[in-house]
Amino acid sequence: MSIYNNTFSLRTREKLEIIDVSERVSAIVSDSGIENGLVNVWTVHTTAALAVNENDTSLLEDILSTFTRLIPIESEYHHNLKYKWFSGEQNAHAHILNCLIKSYTAIPLRNKRMALGTWQSILFIELDGPRARSVDIQVMGE
Amino acid sequence: MSIYNNTFSLRTREKLEIIDVSERVSAIVSDSGIENGLVNVWTVHTTAALAVNENDTSLLEDILSTFTRLIPIESEYHHNLKYKWFSGEQNAHAHILNCLIKSYTAIPLRNKRMALGTWQSILFIELDGPRARSVDIQVMGE
Amino acid sequence: MSIYNNTFSLRTREKLEIIDVSERVSAIVSDSGIENGLVNVWTVHTTAALAVNENDTSLLEDILSTFTRLIPIESEYHHNLKYKWFSGEQNAHAHILNCLIKSYTAIPLRNKRMALGTWQSILFIELDGPRARSVDIQVMGE
Repeated sequence: MSIYNNTFSLRTREKLEIIDVSERVSAIVSDSGIENGLVNVWTVHTTAALAVNENDTSLLEDILSTFTRLIPIESEYHHNLKYKWFSGEQNAHAHILNCLIKSYTAIPLRNKRMALGTWQSILFIELDGPRARSVDIQVMGE
Repeated sequence: MSIYNNTFSLRTREKLEIIDVSERVSAIVSDSGIENGLVNVWTVHTTAALAVNENDTSLLEDILSTFTRLIPIESEYHHNLKYKWFSGEQNAHAHILNCLIKSYTAIPLRNKRMALGTWQSILFIELDGPRARSVDIQVMGE
Repeated sequence: MSIYNNTFSLRTREKLEIIDVSERVSAIVSDSGIENGLVNVWTVHTTAALAVNENDTSLLEDILSTFTRLIPIESEYHHNLKYKWFSGEQNAHAHILNCLIKSYTAIPLRNKRMALGTWQSILFIELDGPRARSVDIQVMGE
């Protein structure tokens, strides 16, 4: 079995933003030389998340507006009140959304290709930007 | 290490529907001959999802009605308006729910058995049916 | 490739409660002797869940209050009505939340350390306590 690790950085520009990182993940998978196994995509952040869905601009707007309709950016969060002197910590909504959307996705790898369907893209979801972010890729297999 | 891949198809009958696929996954795990490792269950669709929970008919109704209470099928979604001439694309709700419920679940495999608890079943969740769907299984281990 | 399995128990004290289990997972990873690979954290329960986020007391309150605002403990759930004679089954909210928060998280392992960021803790989320619970850890790698 082989295990290959790599990381890439990205800079988000908005408070809420979805960035398609499929090509960057795919390039690392290619570099790994591993043909079959599992591609683990991980982000070390607690106020951003990862999903796999369609990269359609209008849909990405719907995703973000629905998330913040359900879990508003501004509300009487204990976390935000505790750190009310610190503008960088007014982000309970982002933490809560991360618990649902998750910091992690795994994608099966078969014959050098990730098992992504026609409409599946790997989406990095910024929930409290703009910030410098990173994504860790681990390819495990043979 | 061994890696075994297989796929099965299913046909959904309703707009929203939950189908227990535990036995079909279990049969593939058995075919793999792998005794310990990880069972990766993946679906290539962006408007269906996978979960692990109890297969109780009344509960499955509650799950679907709660999901569509939070994220209604009909709403002013940009995605649906953009494709309003195309009935097959009136499905922003399904894409958004997929971002939360996920296209993927992984289940540890120990001594030829998936680590499912008494009440845990593997559930395929149709969010925009009826459609022909497929589920990919990858067993990785030894 | 090596695969190491272990389990730990915990007792929850409240109906809704979040317990940081990072140290217990980390101890098992250390016992495994595996240096690189994937740490699969799994719980066999359908009314509890796992997440990775910040262990900040005020935030944990926000997480639980938001979850139960979206999916209330008391509501006209079919599941609860069906088992209305059984107090231990008044828990549709917990099943539904588990479908979103999930029974599972996986964390890449690199050079003997889980790839957890500064603010990432492994959180066990009780949704229908108090109960005796268990968490299964599988470390797969080399």
